[in-house]
Amino acid sequence: MWNLPPTDTVLHLLSYVALTAQAMTAALAAGRRSMDWAGVCMLGCITALGGGTIRDVLLGHYPLMWVQNPSYLALTGIAAFVTILIARQVHRLNAAFLVLDAIGLVVFTMAGCDVALQMNASLPIVIVSGMITGCAGGVLRDILCNDVPLLFRAELYASVSIVTGLFYATAFGLNLNAQLWTVLTFVLGLTLRLLAIRYKWEMPKFVFNGDR
Amino acid sequence: MWNLPPTDTVLHLLSYVALTAQAMTAALAAGRRSMDWAGVCMLGCITALGGGTIRDVLLGHYPLMWVQNPSYLALTGIAAFVTILIARQVHRLNAAFLVLDAIGLVVFTMAGCDVALQMNASLPIVIVSGMITGCAGGVLRDILCNDVPLLFRAELYASVSIVTGLFYATAFGLNLNAQLWTVLTFVLGLTLRLLAIRYKWEMPKFVFNGDR
Amino acid sequence: MWNLPPTDTVLHLLSYVALTAQAMTAALAAGRRSMDWAGVCMLGCITALGGGTIRDVLLGHYPLMWVQNPSYLALTGIAAFVTILIARQVHRLNAAFLVLDAIGLVVFTMAGCDVALQMNASLPIVIVSGMITGCAGGVLRDILCNDVPLLFRAELYASVSIVTGLFYATAFGLNLNAQLWTVLTFVLGLTLRLLAIRYKWEMPKFVFNGDR
Repeated sequence: MWNLPPTDTVLHLLSYVALTAQAMTAALAAGRRSMDWAGVCMLGCITALGGGTIRDVLLGHYPLMWVQNPSYLALTGIAAFVTILIARQVHRLNAAFLVLDAIGLVVFTMAGCDVALQMNASLPIVIVSGMITGCAGGVLRDILCNDVPLLFRAELYASVSIVTGLFYATAFGLNLNAQLWTVLTFVLGLTLRLLAIRYKWEMPKFVFNGDR
Repeated sequence: MWNLPPTDTVLHLLSYVALTAQAMTAALAAGRRSMDWAGVCMLGCITALGGGTIRDVLLGHYPLMWVQNPSYLALTGIAAFVTILIARQVHRLNAAFLVLDAIGLVVFTMAGCDVALQMNASLPIVIVSGMITGCAGGVLRDILCNDVPLLFRAELYASVSIVTGLFYATAFGLNLNAQLWTVLTFVLGLTLRLLAIRYKWEMPKFVFNGDR
Repeated sequence: MWNLPPTDTVLHLLSYVALTAQAMTAALAAGRRSMDWAGVCMLGCITALGGGTIRDVLLGHYPLMWVQNPSYLALTGIAAFVTILIARQVHRLNAAFLVLDAIGLVVFTMAGCDVALQMNASLPIVIVSGMITGCAGGVLRDILCNDVPLLFRAELYASVSIVTGLFYATAFGLNLNAQLWTVLTFVLGLTLRLLAIRYKWEMPKFVFNGDR
């Protein structure tokens, strides 16, 4: 997100929408743990901005986007706070939030790939960078809520991010039309994710009960 | 703490006292989880120094204070170890430790603001930097003890840190007398925190029971 | 590992073996939490590479080894995935994996010391750098599996790493024969760790039941 070319205004807008949506669903998770208002806002910020932050720290890509542009903190913190007031409605709009979250996954993945591409990282790192940006915020949320991260247990989430990143990064290798390819990647990633939600596609689980 | 001007000897001393106090209360938390002696010392170091470490990593402010001055590791590790021997007494002095912890919260917050101010960060980042320095160590402690962080659930802790940081940073914007303002901020922050403890001030909680 | 002089081919090979072993035991831990295949691979990567990553982030030692050489990601991810297919056998070979893990502890510790020595860090930081490299991956694994880190609760693990690091770093201070000292350190560390496993040496635990 934070480094999309200025022509990608739509993607840029979508990334704000997705940040808001992630902060709001994180606020609901905070509510399930009976956090106080300050905790809700902090968890919203950490969840929405955590993926990009971990990516930047791992790649040594300073300053962090929210340090450079603190309005991200305001946006996500306020979104989480508003959720406290309208929790029932947010919960009822669950389906809409799943779509917004899916948009976030795809947009953040592309933004993460962009950052790595600008740093001339190799293809695997570009993809990992996209995946971390798209997925790591939710892992932080689950750690702070004292859960085993959902990312590791269920749904095609990381996988969608990897496929999206692979598809997106390929275009840069092949020097294709960037605008077109961005749109195609977005459509592909979003479709994949929504199909995965709709038909409950899941990875096989590895269940192992041996004693330690 | 680590960057206070040399004239602020009192604050500097207080920061050592606060580091010690944080390591000692972390050691009690480790004892509740039956950690071994090495684990107790590690948890003491991580809790006391973790806030400043996370701040420096997020701001790209290298080298970290304890890398530059490893005596911090010795101080906090030894403080945690000594706690094993005098756990009952430490526990009995609970009220004293609450005051020492409150001092730590305020002193660390001001130190965190200082670091961000020296890096010419914007006001919101100065305040966030103070809050992370004051609060994040306890979050690490709770994660490592497998709890939902207390910071997100109870007490005016982050809020006191934010108010303290806001008050402190304002002085820099207004070019007021630094010494005087430091003392005023310290008194304000400490008073707020102690009142919050005394009268059990709490933020409202957000309790949400909707299914996932 | 990642920065051993090229003559240390044996150590270099051992480090690959140890990375593989750590990823495989992490995969078993993932299986106990019923993670899906993608989660298993991610947990394998994070556990095996996490210690070196945390060290590099704390020391500001960029780029990270796996960013520079993404084959580490492939190695550990594939090792974790293969474990899904041969979980029973891996579990049965528990004793062998304990030895491989012990080798990893010692080799990673030395590699971590090397990195800090190259950055002209002070002796305590050299030892801490070795300990983080050797131990922190397991802490990340336990956090992500929602356990209190085993490192803090049981076995001589961190302690072996500290003794190994101390012994290893001393040689640099004394300008002894590097090759000889490396071998000696390796033998010392491995022996210590294996004895600790064999005779169930443990640190005393600090058990504290006072109310919060």
